[in-house]
Amino acid sequence: MTTQQLTQQIHQKKSFLCIGLDVDLNKIPQFLLQEEDPIFAFNKAIIDATHDLAAAYKPNTAFYEAYGVKGWTSLQKTINYLNEKHPEIFTIADAKRGDIGNTSRMYAQAFFEDLGFDSVTVAPYMGQDSVEPFLEFENKHTILLALTSNMGSKDFQTLSFNEKSLFENVLETSKTWKNSHNLMYVVGATKADYFEHIRKIVPDNFLLVPGVGAQGGSLEDVCKYGLNSQVGLLINSSREIIYASNQEDFAQKAREKASALQQIMRTKL
Amino acid sequence: MTTQQLTQQIHQKKSFLCIGLDVDLNKIPQFLLQEEDPIFAFNKAIIDATHDLAAAYKPNTAFYEAYGVKGWTSLQKTINYLNEKHPEIFTIADAKRGDIGNTSRMYAQAFFEDLGFDSVTVAPYMGQDSVEPFLEFENKHTILLALTSNMGSKDFQTLSFNEKSLFENVLETSKTWKNSHNLMYVVGATKADYFEHIRKIVPDNFLLVPGVGAQGGSLEDVCKYGLNSQVGLLINSSREIIYASNQEDFAQKAREKASALQQIMRTKL
Repeated sequence: MTTQQLTQQIHQKKSFLCIGLDVDLNKIPQFLLQEEDPIFAFNKAIIDATHDLAAAYKPNTAFYEAYGVKGWTSLQKTINYLNEKHPEIFTIADAKRGDIGNTSRMYAQAFFEDLGFDSVTVAPYMGQDSVEPFLEFENKHTILLALTSNMGSKDFQTLSFNEKSLFENVLETSKTWKNSHNLMYVVGATKADYFEHIRKIVPDNFLLVPGVGAQGGSLEDVCKYGLNSQVGLLINSSREIIYASNQEDFAQKAREKASALQQIMRTKL
Repeated sequence: MTTQQLTQQIHQKKSFLCIGLDVDLNKIPQFLLQEEDPIFAFNKAIIDATHDLAAAYKPNTAFYEAYGVKGWTSLQKTINYLNEKHPEIFTIADAKRGDIGNTSRMYAQAFFEDLGFDSVTVAPYMGQDSVEPFLEFENKHTILLALTSNMGSKDFQTLSFNEKSLFENVLETSKTWKNSHNLMYVVGATKADYFEHIRKIVPDNFLLVPGVGAQGGSLEDVCKYGLNSQVGLLINSSREIIYASNQEDFAQKAREKASALQQIMRTKL
């Protein structure tokens, strides 16, 4: 998918909501456990109930790997369902991968080709040659961790050297890499103070923003500083939406939560 | 497995060799492609031919994920085979994971419990709460990326601030985390200059050293500065061993390459 197609879809739906599909068998409605593939059954119900309100879905691979081969099968079925039924929707493998060049190439193949995601999240610690293999894929997007929303982001990301923090170095250095037009960045919403500054460094790139809701970030602040001429924002919510209820009405309740966020977003576009 | 058991095994085998199982279907002997599970068939042959010379095996998960559900099945079969047939061998899931707390916990479950690895490699970018969920597992080991062996390690890892580089910050800060006795570190062999210094910061931890051979590191240098009273080193070689031949004799040739490294190692113990 091109960035233009993503922007177009956002304007059509008046939503830049990304729904995180972090499926934990202990948290989903227990009657679903009778299904042959409870994880896929849950995802399908959530997607069916929310697809007109969401610009993107983001399965976090950890939640699938935790169930081994079965989990990986559920992930494959979920992305296939999205690609077949809703090809206009942007898909993100939240995998936070990154390794030496020949290995990153295998990850890129796994997520872009074998599974068929539009994008994958990547950790920057190993530098240029660990990220560029992902960037080679045209119309596929590499979402680099810049500033994350968790407590531990203070340990290294905001340490400053040469008067620049590590995350600023990541933003600035990565802009010089080959095919950097295929980069997006993860910027945690709990750090709204930083948004204005980050937008100056990467004015054109899409930012994937986790941490609205459960992790405490403010949607208003993020929009104020994060929006650009192509929208440039995907705001993720996972647990608040998908676990809004663990009863028969879970999909309807998820829709209500998604709708509440979309109602705010439509006023910003 | 405890660190003591690992050290004991190393002394018995007189080897601290780790063999990387980075299986690429384009590189393995082509007659294996007739097998029902060529990746597992290849791994089994390599393990059967080298298990008395190796203290550890390290499948890199990228190479399995690239083949989707089939690849994940091959990974499961490989670790099951190691755990059943050679329970004394230390196993490393080279996965380079790391995410917010509840997600890292899922990864830890995936690799330590569902798959049954002794250890997993983890990226430090997201800090303390992204790593501690891995450290909670007793007698399981978290191998944190410190200084990697690739070109891109210069982009961020060796940037210095407050007169300390990022990788030094990673070493020092991670020592203060809960259950840090379960930490090991990845330190690239192409950086032998740094070994003496790194050993001062983390005198007791095991170091996993990639980059000997194909990536150009020197085994002599690494041993000189890296060995400690519990050995404290696992030296990895992947492609040089497993792709020593792509003919019928591939397992025998792999053994010869592994043996050449072990012959040097035995003189260091």
